[in-house]
Amino acid sequence: MSGLSKVYSQSVARLTSQLAKMPGIGEKTAERLTYHILDLSRDEAAQLAGAIIEAKENVKKCSVCCLLSESDPCHVCADPGRDHTRVCVVEDSRDASAIEHSGAYDGLYHVLCGRVAPLDGMEPEDLTVPQLIRRIREGRIQEVILATNADMEGDATALFVQQGLKDLPVRLTRLARGVPSGSHLHYANPAVLGEALTGRREMRQ
Amino acid sequence: MSGLSKVYSQSVARLTSQLAKMPGIGEKTAERLTYHILDLSRDEAAQLAGAIIEAKENVKKCSVCCLLSESDPCHVCADPGRDHTRVCVVEDSRDASAIEHSGAYDGLYHVLCGRVAPLDGMEPEDLTVPQLIRRIREGRIQEVILATNADMEGDATALFVQQGLKDLPVRLTRLARGVPSGSHLHYANPAVLGEALTGRREMRQ
Repeated sequence: MSGLSKVYSQSVARLTSQLAKMPGIGEKTAERLTYHILDLSRDEAAQLAGAIIEAKENVKKCSVCCLLSESDPCHVCADPGRDHTRVCVVEDSRDASAIEHSGAYDGLYHVLCGRVAPLDGMEPEDLTVPQLIRRIREGRIQEVILATNADMEGDATALFVQQGLKDLPVRLTRLARGVPSGSHLHYANPAVLGEALTGRREMRQ
Repeated sequence: MSGLSKVYSQSVARLTSQLAKMPGIGEKTAERLTYHILDLSRDEAAQLAGAIIEAKENVKKCSVCCLLSESDPCHVCADPGRDHTRVCVVEDSRDASAIEHSGAYDGLYHVLCGRVAPLDGMEPEDLTVPQLIRRIREGRIQEVILATNADMEGDATALFVQQGLKDLPVRLTRLARGVPSGSHLHYANPAVLGEALTGRREMRQ
């Protein structure tokens, strides 16, 4: 039992342990957050609690692309102004959010809802590749951009999706690997530099 | 607007901004927590929201010592097994919690509900020193231990409390300053070493 809960007892202990279940929130941070919540006005605490319930009630998976969204189909799938010939395949909705934030993409998404990671009990069958194949068979999609994470599981996941799509008439591309924009070469990881060299591009064509 | 809220819209934006109001939670962390909450089962989300409401409803300031507590008087003040002749004066309830956690104290507390910090708009009048004086006048208290934080505002606060109690017949003590237990001298701050030297204790009496 933490120091805080030792002094204040049950409802505080319950709140602290609830907060400590969140990712990256240790016992100390949970205690600090609990203290902050106790300091809020009753209205503010109700707003926080209400926002949790409301988000949980309203946000569902889009039945087309599996993106978390308040509407179904999600507002990306439903937007006629977006490029419906391109699909960006991501591991989870957060990745789509990051790409969306870059402002460099206006196509659709397809969320795999996971990655190939047998050690964590994620097998290829758990991914939404069959739904992706169905979407491609419907005919409008011309390019599938694989945007899985740039690590071992991400690469395995990309490979698995690639195999799944091998007989389908779409262009299959992958996010570029290289030196991250804004970085200094002397801080870069050797693997990053290696990939940047391998993937070097012509400056004069 | 954050990337996440751009994709998922209103209720997610609301939750993220609510979470980002908490101390030490930036936009990125708030987004991560939001995503975690969306991943919870409906029951788990309800438990988290319920714990916030419940803690806020149930936890009040003790009318004797101002400690945050579910009962009034708090279970420290109400505990006949504790030493009612000693009062430890702290800036806020978290400090009491930390002292409680040390297991080295079994007296009562008095929470000042702040510290002397004119730049933050906290003036001595905002502290609960009059209540402390009233408690001392009631007669049982023999020792007041000043346990304000070991920084400039904490020292100013201790000085202010000391002045407030100057005519009262109680022993007034202060937490020892020195090298923190478990630390290495070569990492210690010069001010810490200075205080440890000034406050050095006899080994043979």
